[in-house]
Amino acid sequence: MEVLGIDIGGTKIYCAKVNEHGQIVSDVQKYKTPQNKTEFEQLIKNIIKNYEKEVSGVAIATAGSVSNNNDKIIGSTGNMFKEYPQTNFQSLTSMPVFIENDANSAAWAEYKIGASKGTSVSVLLTLGTGVGGGIIINNKLLKGKSGAAGEMHFKMRMDKHRKCTCGAYDCFEAYTSGKGLKRTAEEITGRADITTYDVIGGAASGDKKMLEILDIWENAIADGVIGLANLFDPDCVVLSGSLAEYVNTDKIEKRVNSEIVTQPTVIKKASAGNYAGMIGASLLALEVFSGQS
Amino acid sequence: MEVLGIDIGGTKIYCAKVNEHGQIVSDVQKYKTPQNKTEFEQLIKNIIKNYEKEVSGVAIATAGSVSNNNDKIIGSTGNMFKEYPQTNFQSLTSMPVFIENDANSAAWAEYKIGASKGTSVSVLLTLGTGVGGGIIINNKLLKGKSGAAGEMHFKMRMDKHRKCTCGAYDCFEAYTSGKGLKRTAEEITGRADITTYDVIGGAASGDKKMLEILDIWENAIADGVIGLANLFDPDCVVLSGSLAEYVNTDKIEKRVNSEIVTQPTVIKKASAGNYAGMIGASLLALEVFSGQS
Repeated sequence: MEVLGIDIGGTKIYCAKVNEHGQIVSDVQKYKTPQNKTEFEQLIKNIIKNYEKEVSGVAIATAGSVSNNNDKIIGSTGNMFKEYPQTNFQSLTSMPVFIENDANSAAWAEYKIGASKGTSVSVLLTLGTGVGGGIIINNKLLKGKSGAAGEMHFKMRMDKHRKCTCGAYDCFEAYTSGKGLKRTAEEITGRADITTYDVIGGAASGDKKMLEILDIWENAIADGVIGLANLFDPDCVVLSGSLAEYVNTDKIEKRVNSEIVTQPTVIKKASAGNYAGMIGASLLALEVFSGQS
Repeated sequence: MEVLGIDIGGTKIYCAKVNEHGQIVSDVQKYKTPQNKTEFEQLIKNIIKNYEKEVSGVAIATAGSVSNNNDKIIGSTGNMFKEYPQTNFQSLTSMPVFIENDANSAAWAEYKIGASKGTSVSVLLTLGTGVGGGIIINNKLLKGKSGAAGEMHFKMRMDKHRKCTCGAYDCFEAYTSGKGLKRTAEEITGRADITTYDVIGGAASGDKKMLEILDIWENAIADGVIGLANLFDPDCVVLSGSLAEYVNTDKIEKRVNSEIVTQPTVIKKASAGNYAGMIGASLLALEVFSGQS
């Protein structure tokens, strides 16, 4: 059984056929996310049409929270829509359509075929431009009362009064996201034009100041993971997203385990690949379509 | 069906008969917690003996984490034991014995008969000398991989470098516990002898400085609850413990809901009473003894 997996991000849309083992079994297509609703729906409709004869359903991983019964996107962080019902997608095809949040989907992919496979409690952090989260408890996604659980907006410090994308101040995301890393680099170097790549590249070539900035960033990740480990007592914490590869997980794991009051946890890099969101949504969809959940 | 509920704290032990409705159906007996193992076990044995003919089992709410299959206390914060097997209690009686962490038990009591009744996702905070936590997700206690989940040790600020009872720095507990409130009062007034009661009493009689200290404390609670609400997306957050009555829940709820990215939550005071730990452990035990879980 195969489904069409679609990952709808704020700027890009990816899609491919995914099978029940979480394997991508076609080329991955890539599109720019249209910024108006008509074009957006037309694109999704065309994508689905391309695959209609080859798959038995559609699995959408999307930015924004997805309600508990997966019937609507309730709070997209993107610009396009505040609330968007599953029926809008469903009206584009006669095949079943399933939607889930992208970080939750990625967490599910890691749990089913990736870094947290075989565990029952895990926390996934997506470290990119922003920071997303997906939490698995007793082999189920943590959704909360409305489907929005796993938002990595908890205050970590108060001395900086750094505004977060969520509108509040001093969240974990504000210090550990790509934007947060850049902001820290700006503060330390006084250079407004410094990029995360300057920091990462500089650190790789041994620049002391860049190493210091990277260290601050890693310690901020560890500070947050300490709290998550005390709250969830997870088997493992999985780091994914474009910035995860620059994290020294051993260093973070050592610090986390030296400070938590729960039992030691494991810090791992994600292993389900760049399309984990699309894969996870597909695996969840296949369970729903086949009546397993 | 009735069980003997026993609440084992670091300094005091309470016990009473509890029925399947979570009602206390006998006088509550109170003892000082013996600080050596032999006396402790002798006392528990005597307590059980007193009730043996009247109850069908023993339910123990205890300080310290309790393992996932409820077979041992794995990390007591008290001084008495680091690890303590359920079989030590079981060897004292032929009746079934059930053990669970006290804050988890209190969360369960609130969920079954108290402030979070009718909800499926809730967070309980016990604000006393320290701060405890119990989290319910989809009508089950969150235990984590080892049973230790729900520890309220997440970093909230970094500028103060205040040491927490857990050994780390700047945890939620370090600012919101009774000890934390006293510490804040010491810093602001410069008086080493100031007590939490001085703050609470002073605030009640309109002392501006004490009101300011109480406000800082309440804002620290709100700061932490914002993170918890974003992580768990709970139906409600229940405040219990000896200090909960001094919290303005409306004020905290308003601030929390103005800052979170998840759907609005409700901040409530606990309503299952002072013996919620004993009651919750009893209700959990009755489910286990009757094979419901």
